[in-house]
Amino acid sequence: MEKKKDRKFGLGKLRKLAAVVASGMSKIGRRPELTGRELVLEAFMEALDFTRNLERKDIGAIYVGSQSETYEHQIMYGSLVADWLGLLPSGSLRVEGCAAAGALAFRQAVIDIMSGLHDVVLACGVEKMSLRTTAEVTDALMSASESTLEQYSGLTFPAIYALMATSHMARYGSTEQDMAQIAIKNHENALMNPKAHIKKPISESEVLSSRVVATPLKLYDCSPISDGAAVAILANPEIAKHFTDSPTFVVGMGHETDTIGLYEREDVAWPAAVFGACNEAYKMAGVEPTEISFAEVHDCFTINEILAYEACGFVERGRGHLLARQGETKIGGKIPVNPSGGLKARGHPVGATGLCQIYELHLQLLGEAGGRQVENTKFALAVNEGGSNAVATAHILSK
Amino acid sequence: MEKKKDRKFGLGKLRKLAAVVASGMSKIGRRPELTGRELVLEAFMEALDFTRNLERKDIGAIYVGSQSETYEHQIMYGSLVADWLGLLPSGSLRVEGCAAAGALAFRQAVIDIMSGLHDVVLACGVEKMSLRTTAEVTDALMSASESTLEQYSGLTFPAIYALMATSHMARYGSTEQDMAQIAIKNHENALMNPKAHIKKPISESEVLSSRVVATPLKLYDCSPISDGAAVAILANPEIAKHFTDSPTFVVGMGHETDTIGLYEREDVAWPAAVFGACNEAYKMAGVEPTEISFAEVHDCFTINEILAYEACGFVERGRGHLLARQGETKIGGKIPVNPSGGLKARGHPVGATGLCQIYELHLQLLGEAGGRQVENTKFALAVNEGGSNAVATAHILSK
Repeated sequence: MEKKKDRKFGLGKLRKLAAVVASGMSKIGRRPELTGRELVLEAFMEALDFTRNLERKDIGAIYVGSQSETYEHQIMYGSLVADWLGLLPSGSLRVEGCAAAGALAFRQAVIDIMSGLHDVVLACGVEKMSLRTTAEVTDALMSASESTLEQYSGLTFPAIYALMATSHMARYGSTEQDMAQIAIKNHENALMNPKAHIKKPISESEVLSSRVVATPLKLYDCSPISDGAAVAILANPEIAKHFTDSPTFVVGMGHETDTIGLYEREDVAWPAAVFGACNEAYKMAGVEPTEISFAEVHDCFTINEILAYEACGFVERGRGHLLARQGETKIGGKIPVNPSGGLKARGHPVGATGLCQIYELHLQLLGEAGGRQVENTKFALAVNEGGSNAVATAHILSK
Repeated sequence: MEKKKDRKFGLGKLRKLAAVVASGMSKIGRRPELTGRELVLEAFMEALDFTRNLERKDIGAIYVGSQSETYEHQIMYGSLVADWLGLLPSGSLRVEGCAAAGALAFRQAVIDIMSGLHDVVLACGVEKMSLRTTAEVTDALMSASESTLEQYSGLTFPAIYALMATSHMARYGSTEQDMAQIAIKNHENALMNPKAHIKKPISESEVLSSRVVATPLKLYDCSPISDGAAVAILANPEIAKHFTDSPTFVVGMGHETDTIGLYEREDVAWPAAVFGACNEAYKMAGVEPTEISFAEVHDCFTINEILAYEACGFVERGRGHLLARQGETKIGGKIPVNPSGGLKARGHPVGATGLCQIYELHLQLLGEAGGRQVENTKFALAVNEGGSNAVATAHILSK
């Protein structure tokens, strides 16, 4: 049988899969004063401000992305959120794909709308990480890698991405300076994001002289440990205008899986799942990479933004570092990437990150991104990844 | 706005939401020789035997229900399963709702089929619990209850269900003997299930004299700690016959949430989410409780099967224990419940349980349940619950 995903979806015609009628995001960072559920509430209250006529009882289902079991000793987060936001008795569940959990929650919400089961659905992501020590966070993240061989052999996430970086540098001539450009750009963008975790401009020499985490990655190549939450309220496109004058629309999406073990991959410097997910999204939306106005991608480590440039089709394979070197992904460049500051500087509350990206897409498409606004936006791409790029999602939104 | 779930779904006409073209289940129990992923493979290989023409590449998405983070220090289970079963690069994710995770994975698979995104989807559930001590399992399960108040105050899951039992006994006159009937029946049914965890007939005096876990619940009122996995392969109803001559169909489903904290509930002896989920499923299928041929319900503790009788509408509220006392839920009775042996004796591998129920429904509807076969099956109901009945799902299947 032909796989449905190999077919041209929507017969090449731009199809609105679901509408985003509202989005919200908590301030990201160390938030010692708030629990995870309170962070979700902070994001949800902002989302409500985007809407009119929306009553809590309209929300028919709740999808929550989180890795809360480890950080808060709390599973059943769907129930917690439904209760805390006043959305009982609507059905709720948690979805998990490590750092891709937020986008997976969003994706399931889109699929729910597409199924016709509900007209209005809430997707949210949350992580309350700062309760844990860095060693505990490292251990928690490692649960996203293959348990019997790779965890056992002592790999850590910085070490996994260091292997990718080393491979890319050896084969394509990328340098530590190229990676530093990602950190510099994303810190600069975050200065214009009032909700960003890190508000500090950095120089190339500061990045290069920061302490080594896993060669060649240094402290400023790594995203921070953040608390935060983000939400999106989705609706059937036919009724979106009931809730807002300015919805945005999901017009394409993709979701692919790679081996969980790095040891099984043909090429550790190639995020095959990102490539597959993006291609699926492009095909579904009927757009080309060159038509994307800006993107939010998964810069958990600086090297991963370079790999994303290639897998998103913004540049040829093996040349991602050149895009960084030429400054083409800054706001105002050929293809702005991570105007929010990205995982690197907006912050990386694991299960929330995918929805933080959707929040940025929504704001930018509405022209409400303030000092970091990208001009003339039409199509926006969000790429979220989980594990060592073992699961990837891509979403294309438009006005 | 009117909530979609408040409308009559499918205009009262029986609608096939998705087809189950195959199902499989590992042997349930202590399986020291196998890892979680190997248990999934065991279940998947059986499912493949149900089908013809099915190629691995037909499977467009993979939904995995598990609480694996705690039991195996392994998240990203979607990726692990996709890799291990040879299903790459199809999109994968894990869904979680504690003991409802299996049915939630199944539900998401149904929704995926309904959305038209994929024609064939895999739902699976898995738990590898026996690596952990009883104290560790108790702690893991408690992560499904409210963290800041109830976990903190030292509640355990047996204690939560003991509160429900005590309340039911005080108000309705149910007795420890009534609860014992559930254990006796389910142990008896499991004798005819070659894959059941517990193969041991028990007498009323054995149940009543077993050691106290949390008054009034004793050892034989509690389900065991099990390893196991189960899967279902779902397809668009229009193409189901391509894969098998005898599919079964999902004709109704429901999903509701209750407060996560027991302290917030009006009535701890009333599983409101089960009631809501069942009503939604009945309405969608256009059937009445009296039309159900048999049911698999969530007897994590014997009292919970009694509560389920009431919430499923098999008997009036406050009279569930009478159904047990009269023996009406045995195979051959008015409404057989848990012919598989239930969580109590087939076993309760947390994230797999919901799909173990679907496996039983599928086998029974096909008339392949051997010595435990229920006669003249038409509509079958599965009810899966997570946390202290904080999330519930209901699925109605028919031939």
